[in-house]
Formats: sequence, structure tokens, C-alpha cells
Amino acid sequence: MSQIAELSNTLSELRTRAPLVHNITNFVVMNSTANALLAIGASPAMAHACEEVEELASLAQALVINLGTLSPPWIVGMRLAAAQARSLGVPWVLDPVGAGATSLRTGTARALLGLRPTVLRGNASEILALVAENEATTRGVDSTEASSSALETAAALSRAHGCVVTVSGAVDYVTDGEQVIEVANGHPMMTRVTGLGCTASALIGAFLAVQPDPLRAAAQAMAVLGIAGEIAAERSEGPGSLQMHLLDVLYRLDEPALSRLRMTSWRLQTPG
Amino acid sequence: MSQIAELSNTLSELRTRAPLVHNITNFVVMNSTANALLAIGASPAMAHACEEVEELASLAQALVINLGTLSPPWIVGMRLAAAQARSLGVPWVLDPVGAGATSLRTGTARALLGLRPTVLRGNASEILALVAENEATTRGVDSTEASSSALETAAALSRAHGCVVTVSGAVDYVTDGEQVIEVANGHPMMTRVTGLGCTASALIGAFLAVQPDPLRAAAQAMAVLGIAGEIAAERSEGPGSLQMHLLDVLYRLDEPALSRLRMTSWRLQTPG
Amino acid sequence: MSQIAELSNTLSELRTRAPLVHNITNFVVMNSTANALLAIGASPAMAHACEEVEELASLAQALVINLGTLSPPWIVGMRLAAAQARSLGVPWVLDPVGAGATSLRTGTARALLGLRPTVLRGNASEILALVAENEATTRGVDSTEASSSALETAAALSRAHGCVVTVSGAVDYVTDGEQVIEVANGHPMMTRVTGLGCTASALIGAFLAVQPDPLRAAAQAMAVLGIAGEIAAERSEGPGSLQMHLLDVLYRLDEPALSRLRMTSWRLQTPG
Repeated sequence: MSQIAELSNTLSELRTRAPLVHNITNFVVMNSTANALLAIGASPAMAHACEEVEELASLAQALVINLGTLSPPWIVGMRLAAAQARSLGVPWVLDPVGAGATSLRTGTARALLGLRPTVLRGNASEILALVAENEATTRGVDSTEASSSALETAAALSRAHGCVVTVSGAVDYVTDGEQVIEVANGHPMMTRVTGLGCTASALIGAFLAVQPDPLRAAAQAMAVLGIAGEIAAERSEGPGSLQMHLLDVLYRLDEPALSRLRMTSWRLQTPG
Repeated sequence: MSQIAELSNTLSELRTRAPLVHNITNFVVMNSTANALLAIGASPAMAHACEEVEELASLAQALVINLGTLSPPWIVGMRLAAAQARSLGVPWVLDPVGAGATSLRTGTARALLGLRPTVLRGNASEILALVAENEATTRGVDSTEASSSALETAAALSRAHGCVVTVSGAVDYVTDGEQVIEVANGHPMMTRVTGLGCTASALIGAFLAVQPDPLRAAAQAMAVLGIAGEIAAERSEGPGSLQMHLLDVLYRLDEPALSRLRMTSWRLQTPG
Repeated sequence: MSQIAELSNTLSELRTRAPLVHNITNFVVMNSTANALLAIGASPAMAHACEEVEELASLAQALVINLGTLSPPWIVGMRLAAAQARSLGVPWVLDPVGAGATSLRTGTARALLGLRPTVLRGNASEILALVAENEATTRGVDSTEASSSALETAAALSRAHGCVVTVSGAVDYVTDGEQVIEVANGHPMMTRVTGLGCTASALIGAFLAVQPDPLRAAAQAMAVLGIAGEIAAERSEGPGSLQMHLLDVLYRLDEPALSRLRMTSWRLQTPG
């Protein structure tokens, strides 16, 4: 089956099953993330209190944990939800927003990585910051590095933690430590809309709920967001209209649109 | 006076008086709710700290309490604000988001119901979950039931707590336990925009500030949102543009638009 | 150099340097503020935890503190961040949202003013409420006073605290206690979009990062927002489309658009 047909199948499955995606995410993107999940066909739930996250993680088909606007009480809820998801076999995504920028974020991201996310997604600076030997290179929440610069670190993290790692950027790299899927869809104007990285993580959650192979699920989610972003950008005067069109395009995404897919895969030269 | 003329009068009154509506609401919808209140002509204030909610509830012409993204510190503020509103005769609305999905939400919703909201508004799953005998049927925050299935429960809750109950769905039911007003406005695409139920609750607050009959206030608010949603959906490519057009339409809503009103009322066969 | 050329230079500088602007702001506007900062060319970071705000304030080229949706744990982070910015010479902006409406806000705003913001920006009601002798005149978060009514108080606050004070309204006044710059750009429909005052404060932060004179930085930021709002309103059907167009216009703002600038300056008759 072609990559496009596979993507189309996963998308149909997602729209049919409307999986419940539990998000513990940041204040900046809660609205836009929930809207992106609704537009693609999932059912988002946003909840963070330690009193209820385990219950909700049990109901959900996927969990997404995002470290933006982090504070200690939320970390408690994140740990409980991640542990519950792990023990129930619910796939979960870790988005280490701003890792490398402050020790609170770097430390929390590393601790949550220990709870073995199904997929880790960050920009190059964030991924690099998760390895202790790297110097912190994050400046705020925007990456200072090209995504390719973090591929080796991503593969090492993947092998060490048994999770798929996605490094997003102009080209997205998704790896399980052996294979790499490159996704070259997207548009530069997307970096001028806040939280599209967070949206990518949320969509990965939705795809994990219906696509059992996490490498494909992550790559397909990145591709869908990139394709929708391209189409939206072509219709937009700027980032305000891009944000609006993006939701419309996600809602209507069909086979002709998916033919924009630019996905290639190859095997890493593993060390040793 | 016709229903349309009545609705038009309430809307004019709202725009003239620009009532201050105090919202203790969730992170997902704070922006979209505030914008909907501004678009319809009200003056929103969003504040949740237990140190100030009583003061603000005293200044406001209506209070709206919404349980989305709930956590214990917020519950303290909700209880203080509701009690203050009740004691000062300020009308208030309870939106039990996600009741039935977790025990935190179900328990909090039931406790707040004891503080006698003027209007309770939820989807069918949420309303059903407020009665102890019902099994929890909520899946996340989206209803798994048609609104009609909760009408009997709504009427019973209304009689037990002395509040108007609104069950929203493809058809909205508003009842005081004896009368029912049905509102059949709206558009299916509205379910793909996050938080329009929350917006409905906020608009009910705004209408309560200027329409002393809570049964009419709630029905008129549901009608206004449904009509605006219909018009917006007709102009939209998807949920992104729907959200934008909705605010524009609320801002410009006039007599010709109101002629779309689909409202009928009837009396319940009360038991005994 | 003409005012327009100066403004154009500052804007170019901002787009070239993409300063990191650290925001401790309210839940309602986090998304729209971050998007406005991205659209104008800055790099926003939103973070509030007392465990990391000092670290982030050290990385940032400007700090913006906004009191909307205030609660005590956030006040701790605000104080730490402001003190750190002050000690490192990082310019910072105080937006006393709702000062005068509740004692929590009035008290917090006055305490933070003691940490000497570079620029204070509020509407007339908020600015008046910061002086103890004035009666609280704020009704929620919308001003009940014209901006001109607060000019004298603004100048007195400026002299007392060594900060530039901006009173926003139909006409914006920016003063350092001796000079006044008036900015008459803007559009009435902007008051129907939530949080454009907060956006103004965030843009002042971005301008402070590249324009060393805080009086000019604040006036230029108000002008840019006013001009963009005018252009956006002319293209809009209502506040929904205004919000979208505003981001597009900020992103594309060029020399012809800047020719709309309506800025005048004069000297106050200082007392004594």
C-alpha cells in the first residue's frame, strides 16, 4: 500500500473512531489544541488536577503531556497520568516545551522521559537538552538549531528509552533508533503561529489512538499537520488567517490534499 | 408580543446596559467566552482567586461558573462566589463540564447545585450524571446521549433545586420543571468548535442580567447562539472560520437574523 | 528623522533581532498575546512558576507582567521576575488589569509599582486606582473614564516611581512626567476584542527590547497596535475577523501603513 493510501486509511479510522485524547497541556495552546483535535475528528479532554487525571487517563485512548507554562502542582498530575497510561497500555506523548531554557523544564522533561512515553516530540534545541552532556541551547521556546542537528541525539534517546522520537523543524525526523522517517511538509509561516508544535504533539496522540505502530503514527501526524499548514498558508495573508484556515483544512483534508505528502524513510547506521 | 420581538427587546436591553458578567471558567474557553460576551454587548470579567471572587461577584450583574479544567483551589473560589451571588440575589449559571467523567467533577457539580444556581446548563450526559442513580455516561466532555433523553432528569433536577435546567444538543430543552421551551436552532459543525457549550452558559449569564425570567433568559440565550451559529456555519469552510464568523454574527445580530428563531414551548405532564 | 521613519526603524530592528519577551500574563490572553508578539517579529515565552521566572527573566530582553486572572501563587512569581529584571537592567512592563475593581488587584498593582517598572500601562480607571486618594472607579476590567481624565495622575505616578506611564483609550497618552506623547490611532471596534490592552502591554515589552528610550518605545508600540487595528477594522465584519486581520496586519506592517501615524508630543506644565 502506498504511503498516501496508508495515511488516508489512518485518517479515516481516526474520523470514524473519534478517539478520546486526554491532554495535560499549557494555557497558551489549550484552545487551539482542542480545536485542532476536533477539526481532525478526535474528541479532546483537557484536565490536569491530580485528583482526576488517573481516572481520565483510564478513559482515554491516548494521553498528551506538554510542559509549557509548567508549575509544580501540574507536574504531580503529569506523573500520575503518565504512570497510569503506561500501566494500562494507553499510548502517550511527551512534549518537553522549553527544555534547556530553565532547569525546572529540563529536569521535569528528563523525569517524565523515565516514565517511557510512546512518542517524544520536540524541536532540536529541546531534544538536545534532554541529554545531560549537551549544553543547554534553548532560547525560550523557539529552537536555535536545525532539526537535523538533533537526529543523532534523537536516535540515542529512542534506543535508551524505548520510545519513538520526533524532532520537528523545516524537515521533521521521526525515529525509533533504527529507522528514520523524514517529513518535508510544512510552511515557514507556521513558525509565526504560537503553539503549532504543541498541536503536532496533540495530533500524534490522536494518531497513536488508531495507528498501533508509533513510528508511523508520529510520522503521519507530522505529515497531516505539515500538509494542512501548507494549504492554509497558501490561502493566508499572515499568521492570523493561517491559524483559521489550518482548522478548516484539517477538517476537510481529503485524498487530493494528501498527495502533497513528502515522506521518505531510511535506516540509520547504528553504532557498534 | 411575538417571541422574535421579545428576543429582540432583550438583546437591545443587553446592548444598552452592557452588564458585567463575572466568569469563573476553564482555561480552554476563557478567550472565546470573553470574546462572545463582548460581541453580544456584555462586559466580561474573568477572575477565580478566592481572595477576590466575592468582591467581584458583588459588582457583577451575573455570575457564570464552569467546571472545565477543574482543580481544588478553584472549587473554593467557585463556592465563595456562588454563595455570595445567591445571598445578594445576583443570578448565576452552573455549567457542570465533564460531570460523569470523573468523580471530582460529578461531586463538585452536585455540591455547587446545592448552592442553587439560577440556571444549570449541560449536555445530556452531564445532566444525567447529576442524579445519583444514573450511571456515569459521560465520555470526556462530549455527550453520548441525545438531549431529549435527559429531559425527564432535567425537570426533576429543576423541581428539586428550584433552578431552570437547560439541556443542550441538536435541540435544546429549557425547563423550570413545569414548562419546557425547545430551541431547534444551531448547526452540526458547532460541535467541532471547542467550548461552544461554555459560550452558551456565558450568554445565559448575560441574558439573566437583563431578562428577569430565567426560563426565558436561558431559552433566548440558546436561541441567539444557535441562530448565530447557523448563519456563521453557512459562511464557513470549517470550524476555524465558523469560530471567527460566530463572533462577527453575534456582534451584528439584527431583526432579520432573529426571524430564524425556532422556539416552541409546552407543559410537562408532571408526575402525581 | 521623521516620526514615521523612526517608527519604521524601530520596527525593522525588532524584526531583525526577534527579542525574547518573557510574559507573566493572564489565561484569557496568553494565546492572543503570544500570537501578536510572533506576528510583529518577537519571540514570546510564557512562564509563571516561581521556580523558573528568575532564570527566564535573565534570558529575556524584556519582561511583561499582567495582573489579569490574578491569584496569590502567581504574585510570588511576578515579584521574583520583576526584581530580577530590575537588578539585571532588563526593561519591564506592568499592566495592572482590573486595579480598582478588587483590593487584591489594587494592592498587588501598587506593590509591583514599588519594584519600578520601566513602563506602566493601563486604562484610565486602572491608572486612577493606583493612587491611594482616588476612589476605586474600575468596573470589572473596562474603563469607566476617558484616558485624558487620568493624565495628571499618570504624570504624578511617573514622577513618583521613575517610570513611563501609558494611559490607553480612544487617545493614548504616554508620559515620563514631563513630556506627553499622544497617539490617536485605533478603532472603536477594538474594544470588542478581549485583551487588546494586554496586547498593547506585550508590544511595549517588545519595543523596549530594541528602543532604549522607554517614552518612545511605549508610544511606538501603542501606535503600531492602533494603526494595525485601524487597518484590520476596515477589513472586518466584526470583532472575530478583526482579531484575525490584526495578526495578519501586524505581520505585514510596512511603510505605507505607518503613514497613518497620528502622534503628537508636548510638554506638561509641571507643578511648582
